[in-house]
Amino acid sequence: MPNRRTVFFVSDRTGITAESLGNTLLTQFDTEEFNRETEPFIDTVEKAQELARRIDDIAASDLRKPLVFTSIIKADVRAALQVKNALVIDFFQTFIGELEAELGEKATMSVGKAHGMDDEEKYDHRIEAVNFSLNHDDGVKLKDLDEADVVLVGVSRSGKTPTCLYLALQYGIKAANYPLTPEDLDSPTLPKMLLPFKQKMFGLTIDPSRLHHIRSERRPDSRYASMDNCRREVNEAESMFRHHGVPFISTTHMSIEEIASTIMHNAHLVRRF
Amino acid sequence: MPNRRTVFFVSDRTGITAESLGNTLLTQFDTEEFNRETEPFIDTVEKAQELARRIDDIAASDLRKPLVFTSIIKADVRAALQVKNALVIDFFQTFIGELEAELGEKATMSVGKAHGMDDEEKYDHRIEAVNFSLNHDDGVKLKDLDEADVVLVGVSRSGKTPTCLYLALQYGIKAANYPLTPEDLDSPTLPKMLLPFKQKMFGLTIDPSRLHHIRSERRPDSRYASMDNCRREVNEAESMFRHHGVPFISTTHMSIEEIASTIMHNAHLVRRF
Repeated sequence: MPNRRTVFFVSDRTGITAESLGNTLLTQFDTEEFNRETEPFIDTVEKAQELARRIDDIAASDLRKPLVFTSIIKADVRAALQVKNALVIDFFQTFIGELEAELGEKATMSVGKAHGMDDEEKYDHRIEAVNFSLNHDDGVKLKDLDEADVVLVGVSRSGKTPTCLYLALQYGIKAANYPLTPEDLDSPTLPKMLLPFKQKMFGLTIDPSRLHHIRSERRPDSRYASMDNCRREVNEAESMFRHHGVPFISTTHMSIEEIASTIMHNAHLVRRF
Repeated sequence: MPNRRTVFFVSDRTGITAESLGNTLLTQFDTEEFNRETEPFIDTVEKAQELARRIDDIAASDLRKPLVFTSIIKADVRAALQVKNALVIDFFQTFIGELEAELGEKATMSVGKAHGMDDEEKYDHRIEAVNFSLNHDDGVKLKDLDEADVVLVGVSRSGKTPTCLYLALQYGIKAANYPLTPEDLDSPTLPKMLLPFKQKMFGLTIDPSRLHHIRSERRPDSRYASMDNCRREVNEAESMFRHHGVPFISTTHMSIEEIASTIMHNAHLVRRF
């Protein structure tokens, strides 16, 4: 693909932040296509010089100037990455001066605090949350509901499991997962087990035809996956949420990040790590 | 906490990028403590005006100027958030002009492409990877190893499970999880089941005393958690990796993000979504 522009996401740590903001910016441009390359752990002048040479080579042979999105913290490493023939967008340097001025304090320029493990206790809390959502994914117990920060409720395949995992990994939140069974849906009351935890409940719903599609991948031509059954289950779940005042959102057009951050916000949950 | 400075992370979508870069910048300052607030889905002028009023109020009552990190895309919404008495750090506006100039194209200013669901197929791939790591977490089958993009190998509690989940959620990578049993560790050869997949293997190791600590939380005073046993298992696992040329890293001082991005990079894996 000789006509694609090469884009580098460079970081002294994981590169996740540089990728994420860099990609947000790139999504604003429709015409060009990009070859993306992430270069994590560029934390010495030598590594930065080697990478700069590689970017220089690409700049010499490509028709288009490479883009370099970087969040490197150390000044000497950053300096080694200034490639004349590339557009370097520096997420760190651009803002740090303004912040120093406002905070009246020099930046420490220490690497690895953002996605690092500087706080072992918080880290353990996060792993505990992950294990919580893994261990309690199928078959909920009262104890689990009691311990949970939030209880996600919805029909099978409405997006509960990946959302629970994301809430644990991204926010350290213990999310329990309560799948609404056909019996639950037939009853006019809330599932008995959930009654003491009504305040923690958060409903997920989904467009019946999307649900039909997802379930058909798993069990083609089953009653479970049929359009009729999907429509009925979704209707009953939504009536239950409305009737009992359980907040709920539709996951149909949302990414896992969007579902999780909406729940954090709407349920007033606080990041635990 | 009247003396803490208030920090807002504002976004028209999830706020995850603004939080992530904002926090990276703030970790560079040691003296001040911050009250952090994330405001996702600020996607209309009205919502931005309401938030601006709230920030204004805080600015009037606090001793310190609030900080506002924002990644809002739409110009009119962004404009409504310009609070005179706050330091607004705009991750979008700051760079978009430079990029427009280089790419020779106007930004589309369309919201929601970064963590959105604009590509249903890629999204399904991601969910499939999550389900893959969930379904194959305990008890690996040949078929799973065959289908996997990478096979994480290590003793119990060396960090395989959260890493597999993060690889799935963040990168759409199917990571299988092979726990080394005491029998595997006693043998001089690689576990038989892994032989055909040697090229996909990636080892995780951990400091024996950290392992002892983690295992003791689960099964206090067990042989499994004893310092002696942890030391022996870790030694044997590391010899196995070295002897068979399996790349491996120590998870002891690494966050899940760091472990996952190191594996992506060292195993030359390519993001699947």
